[in-house]
Parts: sequence; structure tokens; C-alpha cells
Amino acid sequence: MPKIVDHDLRRAEFAAASCAVIAEEGLGAATMRRVAERAGCTTGALTHYFPDRATLLTEALRAAHAAAGARMLAVVKRAAPPIDRLRGVLLEALPLDADRLREWRVWLAFWGATPSQPALAAENAARYVEWRGLLELLLGSLGLEPPERREEAHLLVALVDGLGLQLALQEAAAPAQRRECAARLERYLRRFERPATARG
Amino acid sequence: MPKIVDHDLRRAEFAAASCAVIAEEGLGAATMRRVAERAGCTTGALTHYFPDRATLLTEALRAAHAAAGARMLAVVKRAAPPIDRLRGVLLEALPLDADRLREWRVWLAFWGATPSQPALAAENAARYVEWRGLLELLLGSLGLEPPERREEAHLLVALVDGLGLQLALQEAAAPAQRRECAARLERYLRRFERPATARG
Repeated sequence: MPKIVDHDLRRAEFAAASCAVIAEEGLGAATMRRVAERAGCTTGALTHYFPDRATLLTEALRAAHAAAGARMLAVVKRAAPPIDRLRGVLLEALPLDADRLREWRVWLAFWGATPSQPALAAENAARYVEWRGLLELLLGSLGLEPPERREEAHLLVALVDGLGLQLALQEAAAPAQRRECAARLERYLRRFERPATARG
Repeated sequence: MPKIVDHDLRRAEFAAASCAVIAEEGLGAATMRRVAERAGCTTGALTHYFPDRATLLTEALRAAHAAAGARMLAVVKRAAPPIDRLRGVLLEALPLDADRLREWRVWLAFWGATPSQPALAAENAARYVEWRGLLELLLGSLGLEPPERREEAHLLVALVDGLGLQLALQEAAAPAQRRECAARLERYLRRFERPATARG
């Protein structure tokens, strides 16, 4: 019987192997050879799915974004008050546990390489548009008008990136620092419980 | 007459050459050989000042931080209303012109490598403590009490990092995007013109 291989599954495995290498050893370490090794196959088998390193890395970045995006959508679909859904989505974007920290290490590695690589920059820009769009939707359900939604979504994205960065740049953030980070976001979100005139 | 070389000046030149290579080609490109080349000397001459790559890169990161820090201190010393000095300091941390964008590309490159390198993580952490300390001082001169100063300094650092990231990740941010980024910060700072009870 011939070996049956699911094409998409195999691609996802290679993307995951790339992310693991990147999170642990940095982007430079994620060569075709090293990723194939990590996925337990030959470089030839990897090349069958991804002709070169640039294609593989773009797919890895996409996979990391997709994983975070899927968790966020699951939060959005929960039957919960709008402010809880907004908080839940934002918390998914912070490196508050080992999995999300790995994800952040992948972002950090890519960000270091992004300015000089137009394909990565484009991929990144597209994801940020989606991310802000989701936040605008949630802010709308909190009663914010479109111009304010747009502004607040920009601020929230920046805030979450900046807070996440502080945790992710540490070798290992202490549980207390993670709690402090989540509490800081929580306090910031209280502004959305006030009328717009008091928010300013 | 013997060739006279100022030791500190030479070290600063090598740090600057490292930053130039990192900003243009990424951290991986900043090898001893490449940096020596960029500084117009032999690898042997570079090794005389920096025994290895790790020492050179830590110095490069320090130099990039020092340059930003010096600009911020110059702003602080200006005779201007506290809110203008706060705004001025924060603007120095955003990639709103070619020089500051280069600086950001250096941060981005280092951030990608930081989690796996304790020396860089420590250097980074020390600079963030200074950076927040300066902001707390400026927020104090705006009349904020210590606990609120601390909280707002954390939020401002995160916000500026997040806003800066959005600009720095683009191949070349349009002038309109830079203006929008500065305007966003400006709007955020209006909260400090209100009494604490309305800020919340």
C-alpha cells in the first residue's frame, strides 16, 4: 500500500518545526537542513513542499499568526459581555504562558528580519490590518463610534505589542511580572466602561 | 611621529560601524570581519579593542541606547512646559526620521536575538529601567503622584514601543504615517492635561 501523506498536514508540520527552531535558536538557525532535521525528515522531502527558505519562513510566519488568530476567534465566539471578549482577545496576544511566549519569540525573530524583507513586511502589515479590524469590531460592540474605534484599536495594538515586548525580552518573566502585565491591561480597559466624553 | 589614536573614539567608531551594518543588513551580518571592513580597518585592529563578537555587539547596543538617551536628556534640559518636555522625550523614541528609523532597526535586530542571550537581555532591562525612570520624573513634574507616575510610565513605554514598531516594520513608512503616529501620541498625552480623577 502506498504511503498516504496529507499535503496540507505535512506543510503545517514543517511550518511548526520552523517555528520551534526559530523560537529556540533564532531565525538564523532556521535553515532548510535544520528544519528538516527537526521535522524528522530529509532536506529533499522538505524541498518537495517548500522550494526555498524564504517560502518556508513566510509559511512559518503565517502559521504563527494563524494559531494566534484562531485562539482569538474562539474568544470572540464566546457568549460573554463585550468587554470580556475584548479583554480575552487582547490577553491571547500577550506572552502570558509558555505557548504564547514561544509565539512572541517567533514574532521577535521575524521583526528583526522584516525591514529588509518585503515579503515578510507585507505579511506582517496584512495581519496587523486584520488584528485592528477585529479590535474595531469589538470596540464597536462596546458602543464606540467608528472614528473612536479606529483610534482606540490603534492604541490597543500598540499597547499590547509594547507590553508583550517587555515580557518577551526577558529570559524568563516571573509569574508576578505576567500578572502585573495582565493587570495593567485590565486597568487600561476600564476606560471603555466610561462614556466617550470622559475618555477623551 | 607615532600615530595617535584615541582609545574611546576608536571604540565608538567600531560601535557605530556595527550599528550601521546591523541596521542595513541585520544582526547576523555583523561579524567581526564585516564590521572591521565597514570601519575601514583589519579584523586584527578590531580585535585589539573588542576580543569577540559578543563584546562588540553589547557595545553597539549600548552606543545605540546612549545616542537616544543623549537626545532625550537634551530635551529634558530645555526650558519648556513639562508637557512639552514629556512629548519631546517620547518623540525622540519614535522612528520619525531616517536616523531614528536606523536606531529602531538596530533595536529590532537585537530584540530578535535578546531572549537567547542573557547579556543582551540584561543590557536591555537596565535601559528600560532608566527610560521609565526618566518618564516618571517628567510625569511627576506634571503633578502625578508616585503610584500613578509609575503606572503611566509603564503605559507610555509600551505605547511608544508599539507605535514605533508599526512604523519600523514597514520598508519605508510614508510621511503621512509618521505624522499620524506623532498625532496619535499627541492625542494620548492630552489625558495628562486633565485632573487625575478624570484620567482613571
